[in-house]
Amino acid sequence: MQGVQHITSADNARLKQAVKLHRRSGRREAGEFLIEGPKLLHEAVKSGVALRAVFCEERSLEIAGRLGAPDIFVVPARLLQKLCDTESPQGCVGVAAIPACGAAPLETQGCYLVLENIQDPGNVGTILRTAEAFCVSAVLVLGATADLYGPKVVRSAMGSLFRQRVRFFESAQLLREALSEAGIRLYGAALRGDTRSITACGLGPGTAVAVGNEGSGLTQELLALCDGTLKIPMGAATESLNAAVAASIIMWEMSRETRREEV
Amino acid sequence: MQGVQHITSADNARLKQAVKLHRRSGRREAGEFLIEGPKLLHEAVKSGVALRAVFCEERSLEIAGRLGAPDIFVVPARLLQKLCDTESPQGCVGVAAIPACGAAPLETQGCYLVLENIQDPGNVGTILRTAEAFCVSAVLVLGATADLYGPKVVRSAMGSLFRQRVRFFESAQLLREALSEAGIRLYGAALRGDTRSITACGLGPGTAVAVGNEGSGLTQELLALCDGTLKIPMGAATESLNAAVAASIIMWEMSRETRREEV
Repeated sequence: MQGVQHITSADNARLKQAVKLHRRSGRREAGEFLIEGPKLLHEAVKSGVALRAVFCEERSLEIAGRLGAPDIFVVPARLLQKLCDTESPQGCVGVAAIPACGAAPLETQGCYLVLENIQDPGNVGTILRTAEAFCVSAVLVLGATADLYGPKVVRSAMGSLFRQRVRFFESAQLLREALSEAGIRLYGAALRGDTRSITACGLGPGTAVAVGNEGSGLTQELLALCDGTLKIPMGAATESLNAAVAASIIMWEMSRETRREEV
Repeated sequence: MQGVQHITSADNARLKQAVKLHRRSGRREAGEFLIEGPKLLHEAVKSGVALRAVFCEERSLEIAGRLGAPDIFVVPARLLQKLCDTESPQGCVGVAAIPACGAAPLETQGCYLVLENIQDPGNVGTILRTAEAFCVSAVLVLGATADLYGPKVVRSAMGSLFRQRVRFFESAQLLREALSEAGIRLYGAALRGDTRSITACGLGPGTAVAVGNEGSGLTQELLALCDGTLKIPMGAATESLNAAVAASIIMWEMSRETRREEV
């Protein structure tokens, strides 16, 4: 049975609690994150994400009701805005439980993308979206990568965040151990003396590729743990690609190789 | 000989003129656009873009002086902020002439990317950056695509805007005529009954691929003028890729095919 309550004051405890989810620390503490707009909320529910509450304007009450959240809070537009990261909110915002990401062992025949210190949330969201499209077994997250449950990541992942498998690692060393245990090769996207073209590496099953920070690339620590490095061949004048573009081309090549092996 | 002037009032005519360049109409009228920060300004000068003036804070006067602009205006930080799209300006902003894009005929052996109504300036900038990296002969721009000289495109293109060849077309029909004249095949990134995988189309020299709006894809008008349609094979749950990612994978495949023919 759903409970519908009206909130009219910015001092309401449930509203204040939800506003805290804008900050990473607030999300960590509560184990919850915000999802904006009916389209994304619907995707979340369809994908099995547990909604704990929905805040909505009066006009969106019917839509909110269909999402199956235990609590619905009807709020005026000015209060809903407090929960929104976008300038034009779409009538409802949900509070969802951050899913447990689990620690299942990696698969020997899997394809993995490693993110190390990717800073821009738009890049992280776009990478998750591409990862799902190209059937990446899991995205492995290291270091100071943008919080996956921040509003801009949630938005730019376009629902893939709710479905793409993700695992977090405390250190490059622990990541390396998990990969080695499953017999997975690790390539770093970086230029060294022995760097090979992405088309010559054999990015089929049993491969992980790490992409690093937009400005500074992979850390020396992670590079030292790689079995090899790879590059995307490009014209001389260009220094680099956008991080999400580079990661996407790597994942595309992985899926290309995987399909080739299946034929 | 460079002239250095100090501006202290927001009512200064040159400053007000420059502020107008934030808007597309202002850029059209003046034939000028803004470039933020020393790194991008340096790239622009190196790439042959004509700087008409630089506005800078006192602390950045030396850097500004080395850019070779005929006029330098020293302004307080609060006035420089008026010229900035970013929240943390980097001490100087330049006014540059929008380069003539020319109307040279297309090359029979060229590789072209067509943008139709791409809305997000970040996507457009990222696409220009990738186009340069993968040696696309020219980016052909149609319809209501985001203005290439808007601040977010300038920023996300990371300097490629200053070097990548670009041509604008008034209509899909005129684009089709220019392509046909050079004997170039046109593919549309869209799903139809006859859509083939991007890996089966032969995207080598003499090919153009059109990508459409983030939400609605290519227009029926342009689709009717395509020789065929192509798709990037992906997992079932995913509706689509980010537009810049899709365009980047298409350009990567073009460069892959081109290099194969060169071998």
